[in-house]
Amino acid sequence: MLHVLVYVFILVDLALALFEEPALIPLPVWATSMIELICLVAFAVRLAHFAKVVPRRIFLRDPKNICIIVIITLCLLDMIIYGALKVSGNYAVRWSRVLRPLLLVNVTEGRQLRRAFRSIRNALPQILVLFFLFMFSVLIFSLMALKLMGKRNLETIEGAPYFTNYLDIVFDLYVLVTTANSPDIMMPAYNYSSFFALFFILYIVINTYTFMSVFLAVVYNNYKKYLKEEVRQLVRAKRQKMCHAFSLLKEGGEEPVVSKAHWNRLVRLVQPDITNAHRELLWNVSDHHNRGHIGKVAFVQLADLLNIQVITLKSRAHPLHTWIPAIYESAVSKLICRMVRHRMFVYLYDAIILVNAVFIGLDEEDPVVSSAEWFFLTLYVLEILLKLYTFEPRTFFARHHFWNWFDTIIIVSALLATVINAALKSCKCYTSRQILDIVFILRVLRLIRVVDSIQRFRAIINTLIKIGPLMLTFGQLILVVYYIFAMVGMELFKGKVQFFSADSPDPAREYCGNALLKDTLFARNNYCKNNFNDVVSSFVLLLELTVVNQWHDILRDVTHVSARIFFVLFHIVVVIIIMNIFVAFILEAFIIEYIVEKNDLQTSLEKKIEELNLCVEHLLFSSLAGYSTMDGLLQRMFETGTDLSAEVIADTSEDMNFSNPSFSPA
Amino acid sequence: MLHVLVYVFILVDLALALFEEPALIPLPVWATSMIELICLVAFAVRLAHFAKVVPRRIFLRDPKNICIIVIITLCLLDMIIYGALKVSGNYAVRWSRVLRPLLLVNVTEGRQLRRAFRSIRNALPQILVLFFLFMFSVLIFSLMALKLMGKRNLETIEGAPYFTNYLDIVFDLYVLVTTANSPDIMMPAYNYSSFFALFFILYIVINTYTFMSVFLAVVYNNYKKYLKEEVRQLVRAKRQKMCHAFSLLKEGGEEPVVSKAHWNRLVRLVQPDITNAHRELLWNVSDHHNRGHIGKVAFVQLADLLNIQVITLKSRAHPLHTWIPAIYESAVSKLICRMVRHRMFVYLYDAIILVNAVFIGLDEEDPVVSSAEWFFLTLYVLEILLKLYTFEPRTFFARHHFWNWFDTIIIVSALLATVINAALKSCKCYTSRQILDIVFILRVLRLIRVVDSIQRFRAIINTLIKIGPLMLTFGQLILVVYYIFAMVGMELFKGKVQFFSADSPDPAREYCGNALLKDTLFARNNYCKNNFNDVVSSFVLLLELTVVNQWHDILRDVTHVSARIFFVLFHIVVVIIIMNIFVAFILEAFIIEYIVEKNDLQTSLEKKIEELNLCVEHLLFSSLAGYSTMDGLLQRMFETGTDLSAEVIADTSEDMNFSNPSFSPA
Repeated sequence: MLHVLVYVFILVDLALALFEEPALIPLPVWATSMIELICLVAFAVRLAHFAKVVPRRIFLRDPKNICIIVIITLCLLDMIIYGALKVSGNYAVRWSRVLRPLLLVNVTEGRQLRRAFRSIRNALPQILVLFFLFMFSVLIFSLMALKLMGKRNLETIEGAPYFTNYLDIVFDLYVLVTTANSPDIMMPAYNYSSFFALFFILYIVINTYTFMSVFLAVVYNNYKKYLKEEVRQLVRAKRQKMCHAFSLLKEGGEEPVVSKAHWNRLVRLVQPDITNAHRELLWNVSDHHNRGHIGKVAFVQLADLLNIQVITLKSRAHPLHTWIPAIYESAVSKLICRMVRHRMFVYLYDAIILVNAVFIGLDEEDPVVSSAEWFFLTLYVLEILLKLYTFEPRTFFARHHFWNWFDTIIIVSALLATVINAALKSCKCYTSRQILDIVFILRVLRLIRVVDSIQRFRAIINTLIKIGPLMLTFGQLILVVYYIFAMVGMELFKGKVQFFSADSPDPAREYCGNALLKDTLFARNNYCKNNFNDVVSSFVLLLELTVVNQWHDILRDVTHVSARIFFVLFHIVVVIIIMNIFVAFILEAFIIEYIVEKNDLQTSLEKKIEELNLCVEHLLFSSLAGYSTMDGLLQRMFETGTDLSAEVIADTSEDMNFSNPSFSPA
Repeated sequence: MLHVLVYVFILVDLALALFEEPALIPLPVWATSMIELICLVAFAVRLAHFAKVVPRRIFLRDPKNICIIVIITLCLLDMIIYGALKVSGNYAVRWSRVLRPLLLVNVTEGRQLRRAFRSIRNALPQILVLFFLFMFSVLIFSLMALKLMGKRNLETIEGAPYFTNYLDIVFDLYVLVTTANSPDIMMPAYNYSSFFALFFILYIVINTYTFMSVFLAVVYNNYKKYLKEEVRQLVRAKRQKMCHAFSLLKEGGEEPVVSKAHWNRLVRLVQPDITNAHRELLWNVSDHHNRGHIGKVAFVQLADLLNIQVITLKSRAHPLHTWIPAIYESAVSKLICRMVRHRMFVYLYDAIILVNAVFIGLDEEDPVVSSAEWFFLTLYVLEILLKLYTFEPRTFFARHHFWNWFDTIIIVSALLATVINAALKSCKCYTSRQILDIVFILRVLRLIRVVDSIQRFRAIINTLIKIGPLMLTFGQLILVVYYIFAMVGMELFKGKVQFFSADSPDPAREYCGNALLKDTLFARNNYCKNNFNDVVSSFVLLLELTVVNQWHDILRDVTHVSARIFFVLFHIVVVIIIMNIFVAFILEAFIIEYIVEKNDLQTSLEKKIEELNLCVEHLLFSSLAGYSTMDGLLQRMFETGTDLSAEVIADTSEDMNFSNPSFSPA
């Protein structure tokens, strides 16, 4: 509850950007200040509470607490200065808004986010060295371009002199690295002589392909190394604690063991909500010789075993079977159930979905098409009803049956939206484009279902769904960086470009309300809405800059040349560093989840489940759904392919040195 | 010699594209046909020779021989058909030209290239599954776009209806994945309502970022897995042969060993040009207890030890020391040598280079600047002379002293070019822009030297130089694919777009000689030279398509809509598959070479060199320069981080099972 409250306050604090100058929805300064004050007080109270619980020494040694104190102080200071300056009628800047997203990083719950930041901080020195080398290469190439092409009186498309100013060349070639101005930047030289293409080819091969790949390599490697080290420490701590627990619980002399009774009591203590069957299963996995006690190695695995998510399904009888057994057990009913369970049923509905896709593509104002829609909806509802008739409802809607939930929600909402739409249409009182939009979206989403029937597609999608929550960490990271850049950008560039809606008669619409933009590519391409006038536009603009294409156009015409620094900085931080980390993360997580086989512990657990099939009668263990926690996944990411776990347990077994085939000289 | 000849014939065969229709330098058909015939005969002769040497069964089982036979036959067939059609005045296509680059793949020397192709072929099934899923996602998004935006009567910048045709939407959204038309494709919808930005953000996050990263993950993983398997087999074969050699050479009963005498004879047999000191060093590393014989484990390492490149430097006296000892040993001479060896000497020249950089940036027509150039040249020549005075010349120009070579070549050529340029200028008989260009290039290249003084830059550069030869494999791969696409493109699109030089009075210059291109973005951006009219332009155009940006513009206006298929295919093959493999390769190679530490064998060799410092008196072993062969690097790439070598040697040592901490249920 309190955790949620903290997040709500942070969100409110961040959302204030919507209402402050330059605002999407303007609110008076006193109102936003009041809300911010409440948020700050809330954070202060939380911190004070935390300080009371935690010993003072630990509290003050923790950098994140210091950070929060500093942020709150600075925010208060800024509010006072801003208020005073505004009252006295001076120009004032709300510079403390940049600090707000840092709260998100520093609350105790933002552990994954802090980890991502730490991994960036650790990679930074290496990235910087590489970046300087890369910039050196760009500078050398620019100098060469100046010398080779500057004196040839070439002209760009706009008639400007081509490659005559060194700093402009540096900037143009930096943009070429992002590929945004290819091939335009090359054309004048290439038109003059084909040989100049060689210069640009060399430049692209070296800077765009090689250096950018090396950036990815450095980021990927650092990301991996750092996370590995963290996970290694976590695993080591865990194993040490387990070894300690073992030494407390052990019995017997020569080969100390832990008895089943002790083990049972421990598991029940650690995980009170575990079912008896699950506990019994874990014991069977640990004590695979049925000796009634387990050794140290098997005992230490307990923490990992508990980490593996085993879904326990009670194989209940269908409620209809209990209520109307005569009918449910009849031949017709059994035939229906057999039909629904048959593979052809799935294929039939896949075919229906494909036919439906064609109908969706057709013009929906045709009466045949719109009545066909009702027909398809009926079919889909029938499918769900049939499935509910065949399968036990609670099993059907079990938490891990993603696609069942997806189907049902989509179909029921589509049904509702279509009925509402039809009702509105028939009474002719109100036709809303919005409801129609929702109907369309739901209809199209229905088609995704077809993916589930193809085994290999399902594997990929499941992997993506599994790493989805981890990707959210990057979402937060991006949010923090975007927010900071948006705040700075809004202070620097607000109001420079105006957007006029299409039906505005204002002649300024032609040049986005800025006479400097007359006849520029920016205005001609209708980019007026790419501005920093409010926080939403800023975020969309920053996303466009992340995608990189056309970013030089977006910025070239906006303002002063020095604004390029802002954009180059953004490019370095977001595209070179964060996006590479994102790619590195997907690379690692996808390879582990999709391609690498299950680890030994999971395999042995699954084997045991198969072996014990008859013993565990009233429970049904589904196949393992992977690790339930973030740390579990991380541990798995770095256990596979390395001898991490071997090393961690090295202190217990001494014979493993033999496995190293290279001979040491000592 | 013969290997070089084969490559020359292949290059001539490939270069024929320059002279055949559509030609850069037109030659009559009989001339090109004659040359091609000669090449084909050469390949046939080579194959016949090969067939004589190799047993028939092995020869026919090898797919690459079959491939070459088929290619030669098809080429001959095509030449005859083409000749006959041309003589009878019909339209004819030289379709066999597409097959030519396959010769490059199939000659026996193209082992690395074939390996790259095999690794692509093996990754293909997984890439295809992913690609279908990705296309499904694009199709679903397109359908949604059609339904949401098609009915809103929006217009693009050019005034065309926006998102009304399903196939156009699919294509536009495919282009958006490559980011080439961002943000233009979004602007009409975004201008209409900010909410539509959400649609595009979601699209970009899912398709551009997630799917493209997953493509990289799949390609990277497959590339690694496959190469690993190949290297594993190589290593296994090598170890087995070494074990066999051991069993032949072994002496003694209980613990069989190989004596030093046997070992010496073996090494001299295997590597006749090895120096005695080098051989002695390797023996010392193997027999680190000085027992006069080595066991199996140490013996098996011999092949790897020989693979480590140890540069042997004879520490010779300086020739001047021999010729004029009195002067060379004088106090002044010794002071000069000490100065040159001092660190400040390097810093001084770094400072000079930086000052020089500023002068290069200035206008070279200023007399002060041009005379300064002579001053700097003198300084650089002086530096080389001083270094040659201090260091022994043969040591200075040793093969692995890359930067010394680089410096000297650049300075001497710059000197020559500047002198020639000055001579031409003073006699006023001829002023060539080309020589001046060369002078400029050499001047700028000189600046690169500064990189060498910064330790961390040097490490990166050295790594890049080391993986450079491996990158050439990708150069060949790209060449093969480009050649095939260029041939097809030239047949399909030749002559559709004309390029007119800037001073041409022809009004057709405005629209690239194609009335269809009037007032299009293509003509407006002056893209006329991006065409398929000869093989050089085709290659440049394909490079632009590889860089991706603006590719939709380059192709949109060129020809028929169906030409999109050509370009999408190119994008899939080159950008999604080959470029990802390139990135995967750099990722792996750079991480191994730059970041991972030296392996155990290298470390023990280096330690031994330090230990034996006094024993090896007249020889100087420099620090190890890494593996000399491609296979060595590959083996290293996959030995580190995995227990590959452990596994290979598993048959000899049985105790290693203990290192696995997870317990098997059996």
